[in-house]
Amino acid sequence: MSELRKDPVVNRWVITLDDKNFVPRQSSGLPGDLPGKDSSCPFCPGSESKTGHEIYRLKGKNGWQIRVIPNNRPYLRVEEKLKRKSKGIFDYMNGTGANEVFIETPEHNVDIDEMSGRDAANIFKTYIERIKDLKNDNRLEYIMFFKNRGERAGSSIIHAHSQLIALPIIPEKVKDEMDSSAEYFKLKKRCVYCDVVDNELSTGRRIVAETAHFAVIAPFASVSPFELWVIPKKHSCHFHDAEESALMDLGSVMKMCIRKINRALNRPAYNYMIHTGPLKGCDDEEYYHWHIEIFPRIKYTAGFEWGSGFHINPTLPEEAAEYLRGIK
Amino acid sequence: MSELRKDPVVNRWVITLDDKNFVPRQSSGLPGDLPGKDSSCPFCPGSESKTGHEIYRLKGKNGWQIRVIPNNRPYLRVEEKLKRKSKGIFDYMNGTGANEVFIETPEHNVDIDEMSGRDAANIFKTYIERIKDLKNDNRLEYIMFFKNRGERAGSSIIHAHSQLIALPIIPEKVKDEMDSSAEYFKLKKRCVYCDVVDNELSTGRRIVAETAHFAVIAPFASVSPFELWVIPKKHSCHFHDAEESALMDLGSVMKMCIRKINRALNRPAYNYMIHTGPLKGCDDEEYYHWHIEIFPRIKYTAGFEWGSGFHINPTLPEEAAEYLRGIK
Repeated sequence: MSELRKDPVVNRWVITLDDKNFVPRQSSGLPGDLPGKDSSCPFCPGSESKTGHEIYRLKGKNGWQIRVIPNNRPYLRVEEKLKRKSKGIFDYMNGTGANEVFIETPEHNVDIDEMSGRDAANIFKTYIERIKDLKNDNRLEYIMFFKNRGERAGSSIIHAHSQLIALPIIPEKVKDEMDSSAEYFKLKKRCVYCDVVDNELSTGRRIVAETAHFAVIAPFASVSPFELWVIPKKHSCHFHDAEESALMDLGSVMKMCIRKINRALNRPAYNYMIHTGPLKGCDDEEYYHWHIEIFPRIKYTAGFEWGSGFHINPTLPEEAAEYLRGIK
Repeated sequence: MSELRKDPVVNRWVITLDDKNFVPRQSSGLPGDLPGKDSSCPFCPGSESKTGHEIYRLKGKNGWQIRVIPNNRPYLRVEEKLKRKSKGIFDYMNGTGANEVFIETPEHNVDIDEMSGRDAANIFKTYIERIKDLKNDNRLEYIMFFKNRGERAGSSIIHAHSQLIALPIIPEKVKDEMDSSAEYFKLKKRCVYCDVVDNELSTGRRIVAETAHFAVIAPFASVSPFELWVIPKKHSCHFHDAEESALMDLGSVMKMCIRKINRALNRPAYNYMIHTGPLKGCDDEEYYHWHIEIFPRIKYTAGFEWGSGFHINPTLPEEAAEYLRGIK
C-alpha cells in the first residue's frame, strides 16, 4: 500500500510506502571505536595552526571547547566585493559570502549525543555569536547552519563539526518555505508550523518527544526514512532570537535525537539544517517559524526523485516515530 | 575563485568552483567485467517468469530485445481508484499511478553505450509506445522516464533498465520548470530553451556535441560535475511528438553521451531523466521544450545543498565540456 502525502508547508509530495520489509541500510555506519585524539586530524587540539585564522573561540577546560575557523576550501569569501553580472542570457555573481566551520568539541571521538547537555547547547549558542557578527555585513541576506556527518552526508572529516554558509541571496528552498508559510498565514491568519505542532501534539502519532520548549516530530510527508523536525513550541521566526532557557533545552533535545537515530540505525551518516528567517526579515515575523530538520542518510536519492522533486519514502513516519519513542 | 550562477530556466543558484584539484571520485565505478548472462539476474532471458505480467515486448533476434514489466515493488498502482483525502491539516491521496520497468537489452553486460544505434533508439521508441497507451487513462497527469544506473544512483540491479512513473499530479520540479518557462515566454515571446541552444551554439564553450537534431551541452548552472543536457534543436513541448529521424538520432546521441561519461569518469553511477510536458498540456506547446538531463553521480549531496536547494559544483561546466569534447 502506498500513499501520496503533501507537506503542509511547501508544495512537496512524497510517496510513502508501508514497506514492512524495508531494512535501513547500515553499511554507512560511522566507526564507533575512534581514539580520543588523532594527530593526523586537523580539528584535534595541537593542530590549531593547520586550520588558518581562528574566527571565534569558546574557552574550555584545556584550552578550547569550540573553535570557529574558515573552510579551507571556501565556497564563498567575505573579502570579495559583490558584483552582479550577466553574459548573454545568463546571470551570475561572484562568490561573496562566508563559509565557516564549527569544530564542536576538542575530543576526536565524540559527537553531540555523547556530550554534556551544556556542551551541546554551546554549539547552538556559538552559532548565534556568529550571526550577531555577520549580521553587520549588509551584503548578506541569509545564513544557513548545517552539519554533514559521515561521507554519505558529504563530509570526509570524522571529528564532529558543523558549518555556516552566509549568502548574498536567499536560497530557493528557503524562499519557497517563506512563500508557502506566508500564503497559509494570509488564508488562515495562523502560522502553519504552529498548526503542525498543535496537530501533532494532539494526535501524538508522529511525536518522538516533547520538552519544555520543543516538539520533535517525524513529519507527515517525511522525504526520507527517520527524518526528524525539532520545532520550538513558541512561535518565533528567527533561531537567533531563542532565549537562554530554550537554547539549553535545544542542546539536550539534539543530543537525544542523535542518540535515538544512532541507536535505531547503527550510527548512520546524517545531516541537519537550521531553517530560520532571512537576516533582513521583518514582515516574516508572524508567519515564519524557525526549526531544525535532521536527515539520516540511509537511502540514495534516485533519478526520479532528483528529476521530479517528488520523494519516495519506504518508512511510514508514524512507524519511525513509534520506533524512536521506544529508544531511550 | 567561485561564482554564483543562476539557471536561466528555474530560479536555481549554483556555486561553481574553479577547483583545479577536484578529482571526481571513481570508487562508485560500475563493474566492467560482467558475464553476458547471469542466471541469478531477474532481467536476463530465461528469468521472464520471475518478473510478473509482461506489459510490452519488442521482439529481437532470440526472443525479445526490450521488455516492459511492472516494478515488483511498485510505488504506484494503476488498479487503484484515485481518492483525495485530508486529515486535520494534512492532504493526501492513495497511490494511484503506474510504475513500469524497461529491460533495455537481453544482454546482462551491455549498457546503452555498447548497443547498436538502432537498439539504443528502440529504448526511446518503446517509451513512446507506453505513453500512447497510458495517455488513455484520464487520471494520469504526468509520465516521468528515468534511469538509475549503479547503486549510488539508486539501483541495485546491474542489468540495464530504466523506468517510468505515471502520476495523478504534476511533480513540483516539473511545475517549476513549466512556470519559469511560461514567465520567460511572456516577457520575451521566445522559448527559453531555444534561447539557451542558440546562445550555446553561438559561443560553443559549453557545447559537448551537435548532431542533426540535438545539441548536447554542459549547462551554465550545472548542479553537478559533468552534468549534460540533450536538447532538441527544433522546438517541441512533448518528447512523444519526436519524429522517427529524431528518435534514431537520439539513440546515437545518448550512446555517445554515456560513452564519453564512462570514459571520462571510469563508468560512474548515473541518472538520466526525460523532462517533457504534462500529458494534458495544450497551452504549454509554445513555451516548454522537452529535453533529457544526465547526471553522473560522483559527488554526494551535503546538508547545505539539501536544505537550501543551492548546489555546489566543483567542476566548471566549460571545463567539463572541453574535456568531454576531446573524448571520442
